[in-house]
Amino acid sequence: MGLVVQKYGGTSVGSVERIRNVARRVVKTMREGNQVIVVVSAMAGETDRLINLANEINPEHNRREHDMLVSSGEQVSSSLLAMAIEALGAKAISLLGSQVTIRTDCDHSRARITEIGGHRVKQALNDGNIVVVAGFQGVNENGDITTLGRGGSDTSAVAVAAALNADVCEIYTDVDGIYTTDPNVCDQARKLTHISYEEMLELASLGAKVLQIRSVEFAKKYGIPIHVRSSFSDSPGTVVCKEEECMEKAIVSGIAYSKNDSKITICGIPDRPGIAASIFSAIADKGIVVDMIIQNISADGLTDLTFTVPKLDYGHALETIDEINDRIGACEVVGDRNIAKVSIVGIGMRTHANVASRMFAALARENINIKMISTSEIKVSCVIEEKYTELAVRILHQEFELAGEDTNEDD
Amino acid sequence: MGLVVQKYGGTSVGSVERIRNVARRVVKTMREGNQVIVVVSAMAGETDRLINLANEINPEHNRREHDMLVSSGEQVSSSLLAMAIEALGAKAISLLGSQVTIRTDCDHSRARITEIGGHRVKQALNDGNIVVVAGFQGVNENGDITTLGRGGSDTSAVAVAAALNADVCEIYTDVDGIYTTDPNVCDQARKLTHISYEEMLELASLGAKVLQIRSVEFAKKYGIPIHVRSSFSDSPGTVVCKEEECMEKAIVSGIAYSKNDSKITICGIPDRPGIAASIFSAIADKGIVVDMIIQNISADGLTDLTFTVPKLDYGHALETIDEINDRIGACEVVGDRNIAKVSIVGIGMRTHANVASRMFAALARENINIKMISTSEIKVSCVIEEKYTELAVRILHQEFELAGEDTNEDD
Repeated sequence: MGLVVQKYGGTSVGSVERIRNVARRVVKTMREGNQVIVVVSAMAGETDRLINLANEINPEHNRREHDMLVSSGEQVSSSLLAMAIEALGAKAISLLGSQVTIRTDCDHSRARITEIGGHRVKQALNDGNIVVVAGFQGVNENGDITTLGRGGSDTSAVAVAAALNADVCEIYTDVDGIYTTDPNVCDQARKLTHISYEEMLELASLGAKVLQIRSVEFAKKYGIPIHVRSSFSDSPGTVVCKEEECMEKAIVSGIAYSKNDSKITICGIPDRPGIAASIFSAIADKGIVVDMIIQNISADGLTDLTFTVPKLDYGHALETIDEINDRIGACEVVGDRNIAKVSIVGIGMRTHANVASRMFAALARENINIKMISTSEIKVSCVIEEKYTELAVRILHQEFELAGEDTNEDD
Repeated sequence: MGLVVQKYGGTSVGSVERIRNVARRVVKTMREGNQVIVVVSAMAGETDRLINLANEINPEHNRREHDMLVSSGEQVSSSLLAMAIEALGAKAISLLGSQVTIRTDCDHSRARITEIGGHRVKQALNDGNIVVVAGFQGVNENGDITTLGRGGSDTSAVAVAAALNADVCEIYTDVDGIYTTDPNVCDQARKLTHISYEEMLELASLGAKVLQIRSVEFAKKYGIPIHVRSSFSDSPGTVVCKEEECMEKAIVSGIAYSKNDSKITICGIPDRPGIAASIFSAIADKGIVVDMIIQNISADGLTDLTFTVPKLDYGHALETIDEINDRIGACEVVGDRNIAKVSIVGIGMRTHANVASRMFAALARENINIKMISTSEIKVSCVIEEKYTELAVRILHQEFELAGEDTNEDD
């Protein structure tokens, strides 16, 4: 007998019929001899509906009230699922974050889990219940409801799995696993059977929005395997696990892309200590998140600094630089909104020297100019012209032979 | 400076615009120099929407999950109202029943309040907040959410007012006060400025559905005046208070009616101990609530027993009697669904002997036959043919001179 944690997203519990479908899956898992904890998101559309109400009433509403409001969505879906399970003849009980207890810090609307009680969950399991946990929410030291940020139910599920030492954490979603790249862009995209935590972290932060990043960090920290799969089929999905448990140790596991960024270059700034700090602290003060940063060697004591910010913050970032230019004394500021970032991610890069050069060569063969490069231990990202995004993804997918079965061990 | 508790019903917070309207009233009350606690119901329609979802998923859903589900409605409205108040520049905080804390017994979906903490409310008030309390809900000894039954937000408001020793508890609703009778039936109906707790209890249980009965019991027990008024106007409503504080000590304060009941007579049952008990325990076991019961004197050791049950349970009650007739040996069972109950209520009856006879005479003058009579210290109820209901209400309203200003002291 195992302990299985299953998490269902908003689409999977988006209607009465779908909630019944989830109940059937959950009860089946229990009748196969497992103890089952189910973590649910709010019914699809509900969180947005609540946020729209809040924004209409007070666009500047405070974050404590925000959490009080939106956490009601998971309260509804968890109690409805418990009812649906009982309709199938099994025992069920729904528990809120505060009842589990999922303790968090006080950073409302993006709280971090500090501790998980789990006493009541254990007791309910031992009493023969399927335990339905309201995802996304926790409780802080004041007894106030907190939420874990968009997609936080993934983190709830992994954290509960870790606290109760579950055998597996299954994340049910509307896609059936993690693909080598976006199937909408490259029809050769292939579902991975396994992927390491590290690769998943890079892919998630690069725009493969299947799992909340923090849930992967949690799973990695506690060694909980995450099985990402579809709630609409029975076929196995992708297991996110330790590197050594991955069957296929590909050099490159996946190709990610993002069209959300824009690029800004500050030309001819004095190459002296403190300049970069004053630029990026001014930008951070405006709440703008900078992704890539590149500084070239200087000539004549002047240097150029290039960085990327979300397209939405492009104008705001330019204004900010204008405001501080008295202090930094740049010659010119140029920007480009028509860019995209394409990245290759793979554990195998650690031990293969020529991966980056193969990427650059493949792009060059198609005359795609590289505007920025950034690398990490298991990732190479290139900024290119936005119009070449899909083409770049496809040729990189081909270059690193991600389409074939078991062919990506070759080099 | 006073402490004011205000309660707003579902209609009053039924839309973004109405929530803003409530926020303006609340902030106005605060700026007039008061500390303010606001208790809110769920937005109109929300509780029904949730109950419909639950019934669709599992018509036999358990009551703990029911409470978990429906209490989300007040969580939403209370946080939205707090946001709306803050949009007007005042400080506000929403608190759940468990945060207040409103402790109840474990009788889910009709829980009774056992204790009110109030520590956190006091602290929040002293910090300059308007405190918005989610009505209708409490928490039991297991830390589970309970609800107080339909209309329970009234009780939440009065209980909080009692616990914090508030100066007044204002119940805002979609009617502007308590009337001498239903204005839809009698255009002479007049709004009362004051009514005693006792009279309100009789009127509420007789079908004047303005206040939850239990809230009136609570207010009576702790001596909290309840001001029932409209959230859509500024005119004063009706104050429910101690008898000695009532300005107008009318003999009859109001006329109530109900068309929800039906009548059953069991004829020719043996007049011996235990018969009535076996009949009414069998009926109670089916969850049917009996209202009036009349037993006439017996002749030849046989007696007739007449009682009323809700029209909805009429068939069910007849079946139940059929099932137990072996034991009771009745000659005949007859019933009538076309009845109505008309009642006069008034503190003054205690000291006026001829009130009941005036009622009977007034009905007789219009040839309205009385089928059953039941009396209490401050109430006389008559069962009549349903078709005479409105006529009976109007002639009784006239008989006891309820229309005129200050004329109802006369006798």
